[in-house]
Amino acid sequence: MAHAQSVQTHLDSTLMQALTRLLGPRLSTHPDTLQQHGHGESHHPPQPPAAVAFVQTEAELIQVAQWCHQFRTPMVAFGAGTSVEGQLQCVSGGLCIDFSQMNRILEVNNGDLNCVVEPGVTREQLNLHLRDQGLFFPVDPGANATLGGMVATNASGTTTVRYGGMKHNVLNLNGVLANGDTLVTGSAARKSSAGYNLTELLVGSEGTLALISRIQLKLYGIPEQVLAARVCFPSVQHAVTAVITLMQYGLAVARLELLDQGSLRAVNQYCGTDYPQQPTLFMEFHGSTALVAEQAATAQALCETNGGVSFVATTADDEKKRMWHARHNAYYAALAQVPNGRGWVTDVCVPISRLADCIDATQADLQQEGLSIPIVGHVGDGNFHLLFSIAPDDEPGLQQAQRINQRLIDRAHGMGGTCTGEHGIGLGKKTYLQQEKGATSVAVMAAIKQALDPLQLLNPGKIF
Amino acid sequence: MAHAQSVQTHLDSTLMQALTRLLGPRLSTHPDTLQQHGHGESHHPPQPPAAVAFVQTEAELIQVAQWCHQFRTPMVAFGAGTSVEGQLQCVSGGLCIDFSQMNRILEVNNGDLNCVVEPGVTREQLNLHLRDQGLFFPVDPGANATLGGMVATNASGTTTVRYGGMKHNVLNLNGVLANGDTLVTGSAARKSSAGYNLTELLVGSEGTLALISRIQLKLYGIPEQVLAARVCFPSVQHAVTAVITLMQYGLAVARLELLDQGSLRAVNQYCGTDYPQQPTLFMEFHGSTALVAEQAATAQALCETNGGVSFVATTADDEKKRMWHARHNAYYAALAQVPNGRGWVTDVCVPISRLADCIDATQADLQQEGLSIPIVGHVGDGNFHLLFSIAPDDEPGLQQAQRINQRLIDRAHGMGGTCTGEHGIGLGKKTYLQQEKGATSVAVMAAIKQALDPLQLLNPGKIF
Repeated sequence: MAHAQSVQTHLDSTLMQALTRLLGPRLSTHPDTLQQHGHGESHHPPQPPAAVAFVQTEAELIQVAQWCHQFRTPMVAFGAGTSVEGQLQCVSGGLCIDFSQMNRILEVNNGDLNCVVEPGVTREQLNLHLRDQGLFFPVDPGANATLGGMVATNASGTTTVRYGGMKHNVLNLNGVLANGDTLVTGSAARKSSAGYNLTELLVGSEGTLALISRIQLKLYGIPEQVLAARVCFPSVQHAVTAVITLMQYGLAVARLELLDQGSLRAVNQYCGTDYPQQPTLFMEFHGSTALVAEQAATAQALCETNGGVSFVATTADDEKKRMWHARHNAYYAALAQVPNGRGWVTDVCVPISRLADCIDATQADLQQEGLSIPIVGHVGDGNFHLLFSIAPDDEPGLQQAQRINQRLIDRAHGMGGTCTGEHGIGLGKKTYLQQEKGATSVAVMAAIKQALDPLQLLNPGKIF
Repeated sequence: MAHAQSVQTHLDSTLMQALTRLLGPRLSTHPDTLQQHGHGESHHPPQPPAAVAFVQTEAELIQVAQWCHQFRTPMVAFGAGTSVEGQLQCVSGGLCIDFSQMNRILEVNNGDLNCVVEPGVTREQLNLHLRDQGLFFPVDPGANATLGGMVATNASGTTTVRYGGMKHNVLNLNGVLANGDTLVTGSAARKSSAGYNLTELLVGSEGTLALISRIQLKLYGIPEQVLAARVCFPSVQHAVTAVITLMQYGLAVARLELLDQGSLRAVNQYCGTDYPQQPTLFMEFHGSTALVAEQAATAQALCETNGGVSFVATTADDEKKRMWHARHNAYYAALAQVPNGRGWVTDVCVPISRLADCIDATQADLQQEGLSIPIVGHVGDGNFHLLFSIAPDDEPGLQQAQRINQRLIDRAHGMGGTCTGEHGIGLGKKTYLQQEKGATSVAVMAAIKQALDPLQLLNPGKIF
């Protein structure tokens, strides 16, 4: 997939004037702003835009897209800046469209368990708004990402084992095409077979097909009881074997997370917690008080059969908050192990029956390389991450991470898995996409891109 | 969307020779076979193909597609022939590809709760095969459709309220493009963010983008207990109000079906049952014995608050089988009310909070037209069907059904709903798709079709 050959480091002056007229101070070319909008949260070198537009309404967004289309200017959508595969790098320069000010919650439909939000709403903002109504939105990638960004990468996370990821929880989208035309992908009905599934086509398209302007999401009633539990194991292998047992048993666990010794060490340092520095599963159960107690007891028994010890269960809010805060900060805790460390987080996902083999072989690989890298994972889904933190000038370290990642992805592919469970392709996994799907699938994706964005203006250079 | 202008009533003789050499007696031009392959189960006039190819392997399928591409011959996939929106009509003639002999179950992966099947496997065949392993595949459209056909229309049905429809239960597909190139859409992992979601693009594409050649499906453990229940109401309005209460309560019902007075009368005649001829909900609960008992008690209480009477619950296999056999035969029972009746089944789906209003207004419309038409529905999803049966020569009756359907769809659209919850667009809903999604969405779909099948060979004339 070709993208604009030259990098637009300056916008056309007529375009700049039009944008300034429309947005006033919400159009920025301040160097700090440009720099901040040229990267996400990982090792990919920043590539700043020529300008940043802080849009506030769908009408503004359409106008901006029309003008950019007219002036053949690349457009890169920006939410909270928490992506990790180089999705935000402006490889062709152009305009960054920042959605953080387009963040109204437009509807909460209690009776239908759904809501309509603008793309700049963050998941924490939404859940705070919903709490008094007894509702919540479950998808939880850890970072306080925007919902638009979460749509764009088909984000998932700790609760996906129970509630699914973004693709399972988006009912309907409005999208603005590269030329400013708007489309509606779905409806407010719970299901539909009306034509091609454009909703799911836009979910995970990383801003390359349309700019998301409105999102209708499924909601859930806050469960009567939420019980969190943790249990330690003598080895990662024991913990993963327990996970496989739990999943094959069919236990309706709402969260099922692995933290290995290294990640707990990092987390304890970073968060001031004192969890035992042993391979540990963090779990959560949602439901009626009786059901949750039954599930926790079953989980404890199954874990103990697999060598689990020191099972601790709690329904106390502060303790649950402390646990999930620790888990959510594992990436930042790992980064903090190296001063000014650059993050490289792997993201394979394999069928659950192969998870122990995959982690075994990966640990052996790390040992052979003389490395101790924290491992965390949404293990109930077969998805786990190595959290590399690489010093700014450590090019050999970066190359080593790249080689280990390559071997890890080969291993996952050999097991029927995927190179990315939840982070997307961006710049970082373009070659692996070919390897995973084959040339025909990637050609089909590229043909769809060409059909919808023939001038290659939307987030050029990504995925392909 | 243009399709081949002329109808290919005969295949090119060189193509015929090649196909005959490949398939022998599995290539048919027998008039009965052609006639049988020119229609589904509804009022749309048959349009037969020029020949029918009974493929048995993916390799044969690829070869057939390559030759058809070379000779510019339309290809229409045929499973069990149970679609209802004219998906099977060969509007441009050409070759019908019958998948009924490509029906091997290739893998059952117990530990990962998934299986791999060829597209001609029917859902009953799969579930019979799985039963001894304690597993089942939940999607249940009533008819014993092929899984390939169910993928093609994004079928759903009685269990969708709990387990989702096809789009929620397909992990991965192999597809053969119009030129014979094959693609893999997903992986065996439970989740992935690797590029555009081609799996969900093919699910519901009605054979217009690719021929499905291999399907990996999610499976579920057979629940410890399956409890079926039925409860009668003084009116359809009372029953629907109870449904809304159950859904808003968050009860994890596995099936939640409405049969009105007319459909129960038809079913009792057709199936020899003696269910009370009153508006009735058929329900099912899946889970542990204790959980299911608790859920059934809650359902009974909530239904009785809304006027429900004569609540009957059963875990007896023969009684459950009788109930669901009756429900599954409601369409055929309604058809049988008129000798040689042609079926016209409507398919709107609305947000659950609007369901009572939508059914109220529809019943008033029917009354105004002087008609009594059976109503059944997957009401937990907001999806319901009017089951028209129209005498062969009754053109005014057909036009009346069309007018009522048009008004019903307008009504559903006004409520944020969809013209088709599960049957697809085919020939029957092309104009409504425009009305529902708008010109830009349909243009995007058409651009995708053009990108993947530029010669318009795959199921031409459908959806657009």
